[in-house]
Amino acid sequence: MDHQNTVQTNPFAATELYEFSMADGYFSNGMQDTVACFDLFFRRVPDHGGFAVMAGLEQAIAYLKNLHFSEDDLAFLKSQGISDAFLTYLRDFRFSCDVWAVPEGTPIFPNEPIVKVRGPVVQAQMIETMLLLCINQQSLIATKANRLVRAARGTAVAQFGARRAQGADAAIFGARAAYIGGCIASSGAAPVRDFGIPTLETMTHSWVQMFDTEYEAFCAYARCHPDDCTFVVDTYDTLRSGVPNAVRAFRDVLVPMGKRPKSVRIDSGDITYLSKRVRKQLDEAGFPDCDIMASNSLDERIIRDMVSQGAKVDCFIVGERLITAASEPLFGGVYKLCAVEQDGRIVPKINLSENVHKITIPSSKQVYRLFDMDSGKAIADVLTTDSEEIDDSKPYELFDPDFTWKRKEIENFVARPLLAPIFKAGECVYTSPTLHDIREYCAEQIDTLWDEVKRFENPHKYYVDLSEKLWEIRKLLIEEYKGVRK
Amino acid sequence: MDHQNTVQTNPFAATELYEFSMADGYFSNGMQDTVACFDLFFRRVPDHGGFAVMAGLEQAIAYLKNLHFSEDDLAFLKSQGISDAFLTYLRDFRFSCDVWAVPEGTPIFPNEPIVKVRGPVVQAQMIETMLLLCINQQSLIATKANRLVRAARGTAVAQFGARRAQGADAAIFGARAAYIGGCIASSGAAPVRDFGIPTLETMTHSWVQMFDTEYEAFCAYARCHPDDCTFVVDTYDTLRSGVPNAVRAFRDVLVPMGKRPKSVRIDSGDITYLSKRVRKQLDEAGFPDCDIMASNSLDERIIRDMVSQGAKVDCFIVGERLITAASEPLFGGVYKLCAVEQDGRIVPKINLSENVHKITIPSSKQVYRLFDMDSGKAIADVLTTDSEEIDDSKPYELFDPDFTWKRKEIENFVARPLLAPIFKAGECVYTSPTLHDIREYCAEQIDTLWDEVKRFENPHKYYVDLSEKLWEIRKLLIEEYKGVRK
Repeated sequence: MDHQNTVQTNPFAATELYEFSMADGYFSNGMQDTVACFDLFFRRVPDHGGFAVMAGLEQAIAYLKNLHFSEDDLAFLKSQGISDAFLTYLRDFRFSCDVWAVPEGTPIFPNEPIVKVRGPVVQAQMIETMLLLCINQQSLIATKANRLVRAARGTAVAQFGARRAQGADAAIFGARAAYIGGCIASSGAAPVRDFGIPTLETMTHSWVQMFDTEYEAFCAYARCHPDDCTFVVDTYDTLRSGVPNAVRAFRDVLVPMGKRPKSVRIDSGDITYLSKRVRKQLDEAGFPDCDIMASNSLDERIIRDMVSQGAKVDCFIVGERLITAASEPLFGGVYKLCAVEQDGRIVPKINLSENVHKITIPSSKQVYRLFDMDSGKAIADVLTTDSEEIDDSKPYELFDPDFTWKRKEIENFVARPLLAPIFKAGECVYTSPTLHDIREYCAEQIDTLWDEVKRFENPHKYYVDLSEKLWEIRKLLIEEYKGVRK
Repeated sequence: MDHQNTVQTNPFAATELYEFSMADGYFSNGMQDTVACFDLFFRRVPDHGGFAVMAGLEQAIAYLKNLHFSEDDLAFLKSQGISDAFLTYLRDFRFSCDVWAVPEGTPIFPNEPIVKVRGPVVQAQMIETMLLLCINQQSLIATKANRLVRAARGTAVAQFGARRAQGADAAIFGARAAYIGGCIASSGAAPVRDFGIPTLETMTHSWVQMFDTEYEAFCAYARCHPDDCTFVVDTYDTLRSGVPNAVRAFRDVLVPMGKRPKSVRIDSGDITYLSKRVRKQLDEAGFPDCDIMASNSLDERIIRDMVSQGAKVDCFIVGERLITAASEPLFGGVYKLCAVEQDGRIVPKINLSENVHKITIPSSKQVYRLFDMDSGKAIADVLTTDSEEIDDSKPYELFDPDFTWKRKEIENFVARPLLAPIFKAGECVYTSPTLHDIREYCAEQIDTLWDEVKRFENPHKYYVDLSEKLWEIRKLLIEEYKGVRK
């Protein structure tokens, strides 16, 4: 059984116990058929970036498809005070919500729904934690991976950080997300097996130390890996020992076999400097085709500097700082009620909070992305109510939801809805693209963003606007709650 | 099946493919019986802290106990180029290493071995990634949790961050580690079921929004939770709506049942200020026994400020910044070869690296912690070779391994070895204490550290010294490699 199945079939996985007791509470208050609508969205892009990358949907789908409760699960919930009536409901549990989501690989922006759930509140409540966890973790890593890929400006980036990952899930699904974000390979065995992600061979320093001399260690490795021969050259001294021994081993073992070396890896020291010296040594020795891989606590800022200083690196290997998104290890997705069916009609709901930026956008919504027809670039996203449609055959007026006098009329654009149907009445109606296709789609969609949105420092704030109707609903609800105390 | 079993029985879990191909390489070089010794250690305490907390050993043990390969696993490895001879070895795989480790809950310091593995290099190599992952993840979170607990100065801290965890493992094993570090509870269902960690009930804002009024929402919840009634009071306005409605619901529902409220939770706004106002409102309304819980992106620095400003909080609920150790989400444990058996004798090995701080400490080692007999406080840790013992009946001279003129003679101390036998020739000889006992042991052991080691700003650097003999071995090896090129 692959890792996805072992995690995604545990109904408790990461779920919080209070999700069950609240669902039980709705149930015992006669609200088992009350329909609610929840939005999953995030409030800010990690690392002050201009956009994030949607990922983790496939694992969220797997969780929802598999959601059921064994007798052991029910016995546990009973021990925690869950009512017998609700346990009976869970015994015959059948997921019956509608779910929409933005496809994986899509660039996403703060405050727009990236997943929407509509269905019985008891169900929509219970799935909160796992939905958030799947989307938060993988969107975090896909977003970070794409930053690294952008910094590398065309040089390959590989993901190697399993040992520092925050758990096996983090390593495996993190590898998947990093691949979506543009990495070329992962070191993990499970990502190869479960997702077909390319792997990259390497040796560790311990291999070198296991032999009497570095040269012997390299020769022994070359005999085992004639077709993917990579040496780590910094165990004793990169320039004076590592590379000279590598060259000798290439000549003595590989060349007689008619083989060529793949690469050498530098894992310590000033890699920009060393890479230039190593490149020269390899070229002069007749191995201009031998790549140089660089590792050692790299991140996008270090890579950007290395590239700008002309480091001779053919592949950046990024470990701990990618797999944990170390510079900002949180993707703050939230899951908020936006509407409730009451007396047969859908009533929009708002959460005012004590912090202005936490005020939610009421109503069940769609997100449209507007593309300029000439350049193909994305102009803005517009949130509408479900009942609206953006007519792209006519000019459309965008306005800032906070500073409403900032207005702009656009024309000659295409409006594409982003939220696609995933489940209808509990039946999955969506087929996830292959991981390879998601990765390609991601690169294509990021190409539709202006460079101004993609830079690291002070990126342009992409417009996420509301339709007039949605803006009105929100304004009325704020006034209602702030004027009338309950 | 609990979560631990689903993760720990996957031989690939987070393991990197090159671990297998290196093991295969050792095997095909006739080194299947060559014994190697590896140290697992870390180089710096996250957040510039004075110490870390050991955790994750139980999951590492479970992984090693369960390590075996199914026919499917072998077929996959074959497809990745692993040799038939090595596949045969893996088919009949029996773990046969010796393993020692520092018990969970022990304060640990940079550069000392916290796990030691001795056995056939093919085996010792393959287990690298998962050993590191288990210890890195949980030590990271236990260390961070203890920082929060120290900042709270006696006020309870609970862990609620599953939705932002970097995967289900991160949520579940993170809850375990946070409990070891001193948290009182977790929100997760799996941590309750798999580890018996206490849970804490709460409601979300969506519960409040699901009802026509906040008051009705509170009454409905109180009827479902008469014994653990906690309201979230900031959905609309904490002081003008939330607390007044909570008080009404307490009076109208709980009091007639002969029950008392448990708490109210504040999740936004200036919590220090609000908590004082809310405390006054509750006291005046006759509910001085109603606790106040605080949440909203707390961490140890915010908690420290809140405590110093007299916030009236009875429980700090910490989410994302604990479960990801957001301020520094890496525990940089490494796994390095320190000795090899060659021609029947154990030869110490060193990794010089291009970075001085990455130079390793050769030889198979023990770690002694020296405690002052009068105060009971820990004075220093001393690394020795296996063949040495520290005689605590005589005075002992400590010296700084970098600045060797810094010397200090101590007496009246007890020397306690920290590395305990875990596996002998592949058989587990260790019984993990209960999680409750680990948590108590952790608190006791942290009590043996001077306050100077426990503070956040510029903590005293605890001494981790080498025995004279070990220092000599290291010096000779550095000189040998720096003098003689290979």
